[in-house]
Amino acid sequence: MIQAGVVGATGYAGAELCRLLTGHPEAELAAVSSVSFEGKALSDVYPSYYKICDKVCGTQEEVVEKSDVIFAALPHGLSQELAAACDAKGKAFIDLGADFRLENEKDYEEWYGNSFAHPELHRKAVYGLPELFREQIRGKKLIANPGCYTTAVPLALYPALEAGLIEKDGIIADCKSGVTGAGRKMTQNTHYPELNEAFTAYKVAAHRHTPEMEQTLSKAAGSPVTLTFVPHLLPVNRGILATCYARLKPGVTEGQIRATYEMRYAGETFLRLLPKGRVADIKNVWYTNYCDLSLHLDQRAGIFIAISAIDNMVKGAAGQAVQNMNLSFGIEETAGLMLVPPAF
Amino acid sequence: MIQAGVVGATGYAGAELCRLLTGHPEAELAAVSSVSFEGKALSDVYPSYYKICDKVCGTQEEVVEKSDVIFAALPHGLSQELAAACDAKGKAFIDLGADFRLENEKDYEEWYGNSFAHPELHRKAVYGLPELFREQIRGKKLIANPGCYTTAVPLALYPALEAGLIEKDGIIADCKSGVTGAGRKMTQNTHYPELNEAFTAYKVAAHRHTPEMEQTLSKAAGSPVTLTFVPHLLPVNRGILATCYARLKPGVTEGQIRATYEMRYAGETFLRLLPKGRVADIKNVWYTNYCDLSLHLDQRAGIFIAISAIDNMVKGAAGQAVQNMNLSFGIEETAGLMLVPPAF
Amino acid sequence: MIQAGVVGATGYAGAELCRLLTGHPEAELAAVSSVSFEGKALSDVYPSYYKICDKVCGTQEEVVEKSDVIFAALPHGLSQELAAACDAKGKAFIDLGADFRLENEKDYEEWYGNSFAHPELHRKAVYGLPELFREQIRGKKLIANPGCYTTAVPLALYPALEAGLIEKDGIIADCKSGVTGAGRKMTQNTHYPELNEAFTAYKVAAHRHTPEMEQTLSKAAGSPVTLTFVPHLLPVNRGILATCYARLKPGVTEGQIRATYEMRYAGETFLRLLPKGRVADIKNVWYTNYCDLSLHLDQRAGIFIAISAIDNMVKGAAGQAVQNMNLSFGIEETAGLMLVPPAF
Amino acid sequence: MIQAGVVGATGYAGAELCRLLTGHPEAELAAVSSVSFEGKALSDVYPSYYKICDKVCGTQEEVVEKSDVIFAALPHGLSQELAAACDAKGKAFIDLGADFRLENEKDYEEWYGNSFAHPELHRKAVYGLPELFREQIRGKKLIANPGCYTTAVPLALYPALEAGLIEKDGIIADCKSGVTGAGRKMTQNTHYPELNEAFTAYKVAAHRHTPEMEQTLSKAAGSPVTLTFVPHLLPVNRGILATCYARLKPGVTEGQIRATYEMRYAGETFLRLLPKGRVADIKNVWYTNYCDLSLHLDQRAGIFIAISAIDNMVKGAAGQAVQNMNLSFGIEETAGLMLVPPAF
Repeated sequence: MIQAGVVGATGYAGAELCRLLTGHPEAELAAVSSVSFEGKALSDVYPSYYKICDKVCGTQEEVVEKSDVIFAALPHGLSQELAAACDAKGKAFIDLGADFRLENEKDYEEWYGNSFAHPELHRKAVYGLPELFREQIRGKKLIANPGCYTTAVPLALYPALEAGLIEKDGIIADCKSGVTGAGRKMTQNTHYPELNEAFTAYKVAAHRHTPEMEQTLSKAAGSPVTLTFVPHLLPVNRGILATCYARLKPGVTEGQIRATYEMRYAGETFLRLLPKGRVADIKNVWYTNYCDLSLHLDQRAGIFIAISAIDNMVKGAAGQAVQNMNLSFGIEETAGLMLVPPAF
Repeated sequence: MIQAGVVGATGYAGAELCRLLTGHPEAELAAVSSVSFEGKALSDVYPSYYKICDKVCGTQEEVVEKSDVIFAALPHGLSQELAAACDAKGKAFIDLGADFRLENEKDYEEWYGNSFAHPELHRKAVYGLPELFREQIRGKKLIANPGCYTTAVPLALYPALEAGLIEKDGIIADCKSGVTGAGRKMTQNTHYPELNEAFTAYKVAAHRHTPEMEQTLSKAAGSPVTLTFVPHLLPVNRGILATCYARLKPGVTEGQIRATYEMRYAGETFLRLLPKGRVADIKNVWYTNYCDLSLHLDQRAGIFIAISAIDNMVKGAAGQAVQNMNLSFGIEETAGLMLVPPAF
Repeated sequence: MIQAGVVGATGYAGAELCRLLTGHPEAELAAVSSVSFEGKALSDVYPSYYKICDKVCGTQEEVVEKSDVIFAALPHGLSQELAAACDAKGKAFIDLGADFRLENEKDYEEWYGNSFAHPELHRKAVYGLPELFREQIRGKKLIANPGCYTTAVPLALYPALEAGLIEKDGIIADCKSGVTGAGRKMTQNTHYPELNEAFTAYKVAAHRHTPEMEQTLSKAAGSPVTLTFVPHLLPVNRGILATCYARLKPGVTEGQIRATYEMRYAGETFLRLLPKGRVADIKNVWYTNYCDLSLHLDQRAGIFIAISAIDNMVKGAAGQAVQNMNLSFGIEETAGLMLVPPAF
Repeated sequence: MIQAGVVGATGYAGAELCRLLTGHPEAELAAVSSVSFEGKALSDVYPSYYKICDKVCGTQEEVVEKSDVIFAALPHGLSQELAAACDAKGKAFIDLGADFRLENEKDYEEWYGNSFAHPELHRKAVYGLPELFREQIRGKKLIANPGCYTTAVPLALYPALEAGLIEKDGIIADCKSGVTGAGRKMTQNTHYPELNEAFTAYKVAAHRHTPEMEQTLSKAAGSPVTLTFVPHLLPVNRGILATCYARLKPGVTEGQIRATYEMRYAGETFLRLLPKGRVADIKNVWYTNYCDLSLHLDQRAGIFIAISAIDNMVKGAAGQAVQNMNLSFGIEETAGLMLVPPAF
């Protein structure tokens, strides 16, 4: 059994990791830590785990000590030192934060206000989006796990850009996220009566996931891509729906597009390309690691529309992290993740 | 007191008209009709109206007889004959359906599968979007009341197109609607457990509100505009948020845009142009006739983003219809509509 | 115009008062105060009020100075000194907190941990539940406005107790409240993802509204009544449903009960006794001052069941406070409160 | 592998059975049937199952043929003949409907309007509530699986009645159910806009689960128990919260009650007796087979309050059916049911 530890276990991504690891057939939740709840059982914070996962929160050091792989579900900026400590001890490290996601330090400085503390670790780090970069991830011990938007949008657009079917400029990602994406920390706009029955956009064209998505899409395109990204907050717990728009290159047909995506994603367990006529819906991937993807064409306007749906806490965080662990340790990629999305 | 009648009073738009007319200082709910509930009191169908609006549903003919103005909240296609009957008796007619909205019969045939039964009535009809076409509405007796999307999107984009600040092609309207927009009729996808916590798009680039929006936007642009329109269904009761994207013309500044909108909408009671830094939210217009509008620029990509929010049942249906009645009868335009949106 | 001021205007009850007073035909919102948002416009805190109620929050003193009637929407314990200040200046004072609700200082000490700072004011204070105590309220200047549960439960049970139709012991009030009842202050259990799709009870048989309800019910019974009160938190914004159970006295018939309630509440605008076969529902009173009440009998078990529904923020707080103001100033009791509950 | 078939697989309980059986380590979904969707894949009806459970709906006969155990998720009244067919072929039959739940044919006639078609099958049938009647279920082939309320209420009250700690008369079960309990069939009151933000009771003291609960509670008490049962409809998808009230027998202490429950439920995996200070919440058992139970005392009034929470679709339907299958086939009782309830 892989001994797996979670640092930041009482945040939402951390708690979701504990849920998935508890049910993993080849891994075991070895230790958890939390600054806010040290000494408390996880089930004191999340009573749904009572008698199932009553592990007591210890320190970050204890987690590193007891684990073969350390998952860090920490606020951005706190992972670099922890990664160094794990690296020094030869432990695998999977970061759910943003510290190792951007290859270009300038982007990191501009959007996060931080610099690279250990440039050599950044060179070691791989970007953990298995459907796009699987071979680079296998066996690696320092993995930057993408965030939610940065999983949903690239999965929707990568094949079309890679195959040169769409224009590289003017791409728009209109995204809608469930509230858990904002974390467990209370804010006035996630206070129940203020969000319930509400719907709005936030950080319009100014969200710091933008450069990360551009980094991935630019790889697909082979040259820099600029993305207009507008996130919205949905009054639901889980899920991201990314509605992505791009201008079709002249002469490209629907058949070409569909064939391209089918080929690119052939054999992918967690990427479900929907048949024509269906539209991706967040409810169909709830609580699981699936990404549903539907393709549409506005023939009248010459616009390609790709709609992807993920559970932001699973494929957009904890599930993908487990998928990366599986790749890192060379076990079945889907281990612990073959959950059936509930129908309602 | 204006005697006002509602045909189709037990549908959602009809019921909302009854709510607004009950509180109107210069109009009186004279009669209501309903095919499904003839002989039943309105409060049997909507118990919230008990002892407030217990009027019994009669026939369409009775409504025409007893009213100075007839509001038709009928399925598309059923208004033309009723309009002719009202016209023959010199009664004002405000149609909440789509029968008189499209000027071009070909569009009507293509998107609705109907033809113009009374072309002379179509020539008489005015398009009831007061903030854009007020002077044409005053005193008129046949008014085509726009639908919800077709109010929210044009209000967001009209001034920029009219002033030539944005490109006419590649415009995208990513819209999200509350469920009441789908009406009172039961469908599997609006069955509570199947919509709750769900979110998806529908009729992707194929919704029949498209030509109506293009008609209005083309007037603004002075030449044909093609729009990519993708509606989504929000798990909330009320509200439409329209996130609209267009490429900026070279050299256009944020200041120019803001000044243009401020001038265009100066003095409008129901159009609230939000200060920089705020984003339109459906919750701020709940149950009222306001349209909130926020303007944003993606400087990196050269994209203009306009976000409008309305209550689909009020500014997107019944409230705007009352506003049109007020203009038709020459009374205060805001009469009966000065409701305060609840803060929560 | 009555000059009305609101102290604590940025809490939920205060904000709701501002909404109602803005639409009141004989009162005017003269001044508002807020400790947390002094110097800010009310519409900065609640953007739904933008351009409708942009009044700037001042100090408590300013409110007292400018107003004929002062509404206090403060945390429990902060009203006594303010009441004294208003009394000294001859101003009317309506307290939405609990400071003047309990007649027995011992109860106040036991459940709130406070004593009566101005016993003479407590003797002056009247309990503002108009449907039960209207004549005592007329013209009075110090009114203790009941809370939400303490309105819903007594309205459901008073007539039956008063007429001696039910046993006085073993009465149970199983109540369910919308989240606004918990106020604007953030708590972990009202953080959106933790309350959404959740449902539980809280303060089981230990909520401090208990003695206040017992005080009212004991008046009805003519002797002390002990109540088992269990509140639950509903994942909805507004509304209280109180399901109340009492053992029927031997031989009491359904007809007797119904006749008793009909007589007791004859002529009440805001108390809608529902016809047999209907059940009170929070949705039918949304945003308005109505209390819906349905009566049921479990003949098999000899249990009387009364179910009442109110909007906790209106009949359970701000609306009832306006109703009390109207009674205090001798104007039409329903002024400013004839709002139609939306059907959806 | 046990070959398991589901008759009525496209209803909510049937679909949930398919989800659980798909993940069961010792059973296999052998066949499914549906009258409404014969010839369609399950994933056409529930797209969340796409590429996971695409089994095509056949006939009832095919299901019986291919399966070792047949689960019937049918409307009440349709199971008796199917049970006879299974019995004749020596197949195990687990009925999620009510046909075999009531021992007394008179009750069945009175509340369901049906008679016993095969009295000998009724004598064979066992009542499948494992925490109370485990030993009677083991190895049996005809199991009446209790419904949702009839699981939640008896689990809350059985130990106290059995030990004689509470009075047998005047017991009240105030229950609140998620909407999936009403099934997939559309009704006006489960149409999204009419249920959202609503809350009311239904079938007040007249729900046909009443005699079934009384049957179980009477076994606990050793003599007939009459129950006042009021169900309410929660605007959430899943979960039942049962708040049960009973008068304490004189002299009974909290310690006695807690000790009684601890002993009665010692070793139960799916019955989590919560520590003092916690309250059962539907969110803590979501999607899983757990029943959470909290015990409370109103010392002032002498009332015992037991609050239980289950997922109505799992412990209240499909999960308990799988638990019964496990007991019937002599495999680990928890097989396929060790799911972790998500924390949010």
